[in-house]
Amino acid sequence: MNLDMIHAAADRLQGHVRQTPLLTSPFLDEIAGRRVFVKAECLQHTGSFKFRGGWSALSAMDAAQREAGVIAFSSGNHAQGVALAARRHGAPAVIVMPSDAPAIKIANTRALGAEVVTYDRATESREEIGERLSAERGLTLVRPYDEPQVIAGQGTCGLEIAAQAGEAGITAADIAVCCGGGGLTSGIALATENTGLRARPVEPEGFDDVARSMAAGTVQRNAQLTGSICDAIITPAPGDLTFPIMQRLCGPAIAVSDADALRAMRVAFERLRIVVEPGGAVGLAAALFHPDRFAGDAVIAVCTGGNVDPETFKQALDTPL
Amino acid sequence: MNLDMIHAAADRLQGHVRQTPLLTSPFLDEIAGRRVFVKAECLQHTGSFKFRGGWSALSAMDAAQREAGVIAFSSGNHAQGVALAARRHGAPAVIVMPSDAPAIKIANTRALGAEVVTYDRATESREEIGERLSAERGLTLVRPYDEPQVIAGQGTCGLEIAAQAGEAGITAADIAVCCGGGGLTSGIALATENTGLRARPVEPEGFDDVARSMAAGTVQRNAQLTGSICDAIITPAPGDLTFPIMQRLCGPAIAVSDADALRAMRVAFERLRIVVEPGGAVGLAAALFHPDRFAGDAVIAVCTGGNVDPETFKQALDTPL
Repeated sequence: MNLDMIHAAADRLQGHVRQTPLLTSPFLDEIAGRRVFVKAECLQHTGSFKFRGGWSALSAMDAAQREAGVIAFSSGNHAQGVALAARRHGAPAVIVMPSDAPAIKIANTRALGAEVVTYDRATESREEIGERLSAERGLTLVRPYDEPQVIAGQGTCGLEIAAQAGEAGITAADIAVCCGGGGLTSGIALATENTGLRARPVEPEGFDDVARSMAAGTVQRNAQLTGSICDAIITPAPGDLTFPIMQRLCGPAIAVSDADALRAMRVAFERLRIVVEPGGAVGLAAALFHPDRFAGDAVIAVCTGGNVDPETFKQALDTPL
Repeated sequence: MNLDMIHAAADRLQGHVRQTPLLTSPFLDEIAGRRVFVKAECLQHTGSFKFRGGWSALSAMDAAQREAGVIAFSSGNHAQGVALAARRHGAPAVIVMPSDAPAIKIANTRALGAEVVTYDRATESREEIGERLSAERGLTLVRPYDEPQVIAGQGTCGLEIAAQAGEAGITAADIAVCCGGGGLTSGIALATENTGLRARPVEPEGFDDVARSMAAGTVQRNAQLTGSICDAIITPAPGDLTFPIMQRLCGPAIAVSDADALRAMRVAFERLRIVVEPGGAVGLAAALFHPDRFAGDAVIAVCTGGNVDPETFKQALDTPL
């Protein structure tokens, strides 16, 4: 993994991925006590940065590999990102989802052109299903984060941030990045390595595997995988590829509460007019509500996704500021 | 009013106004039966296109006029647009608002640096208050729509749409524009006059003064000024400046129901991840739910504002699609 791969991915993504805006509001600056810049990646195609990695992976394949098709395991943003990227490449996509995934997520993934194969979480192994389908059909697995071309694709978000920060006159700032497996965080860290910008992983409280891994110097796992509203960014552990990059380049990780994430969603609604999902709001929550964890006169937060159901969004609207 | 004034305004706005994105989603295309492009002007500074007109008016003044300050009558988006534009020009701003305006709107306008003067709707005339303050302090009135430099500023949104449509390969399409007094609609109409694009005013049902004026060939008034959820775009009548432009350049006006506006808000939430207010959603509602009123394989809708209270937004989230 290196910066050249991110630049190459940016060339392949050009004209296909949306350059998302870097938003501001004087009201956010007032809450944080410094200037706040929000990279609204929830406005990306399929509503999250995952489309970047999906497009990067598909576009890096040779024609025969693409024609055979791809496979991914996901019930969320990665599924939709890969599905749309595959459809726009004319490539078949199989998405393996648990049969108890919300019906709307299955329907949305199908509507984006993918074949959805469901499995019973209690009795079946998605890996076995994936291996069988891959062998039968010659499908290529697109991993959600521990995959070089996926990291390179997510890194293009960092290139955009660096360019937009430069236009805004920001010479030094931390970038608070919502962090699950670390694909986006490590990609942004690599993309901004030789700038005045520095990525900071942000995680839900109680699911701070990245923080503990960085402190220990080796990969640490989460004790549990459920129990936070920020489900989209809860992964067992940082990836074998992403962890060393984060260890080398990122500033200290930050953990925020579910209540902070909901408050950040409400602020984004009121002051930026964007829809952010809980797991996509933890970076903004850190920037707004944990200002003591940052230095300098500016902070950048990445709002990574906006795929949230109405009931959860109402909960955010009802959260006191 | 002419295209040159809009280009001149665009030069003055350069670097100060946000170029808002033109968003798409395959799910919107499916609802409308043609390609749908959404100009997300709710992402503009202060959450609506009004900042364009405010900046244009302030930046067109000479230094002495600006230093003396500006005054506006508004409890909504125009107030915030003028307030922030004035503050960023270092100019004092007085906003005259009814004393029964929502406290949050008054607080927001003050937070943007304006002096808010309230009046009693039942016993006082805002025009008299405005005239007195203007005479005492030498303030310049910035009208919300019937003001050449305001129309020129709103027209810059049309220049952006034309450029973005060109990049997307759209050679001909109607632009559904939420229409109150017609400042934005006439500005966009002028800005796109010699392109394949054509502005279409969209109004709330029962408040179709523009449609009736265009049909009659003379300015017609609304019978009432309350009773729609789309309050931000309910004005007594089209303006003396805006009406002849709309009459000459716009395609037929369209009226949509409050229920359509709420449904469009929900679609924008789910599929575009943007927050749109009811009056800012009628253009999208027309594009999505009245496809028979358009021709061709593409339609552009301007989501003009996103300043909506949580309770109204919840109502949209509860609206069946």
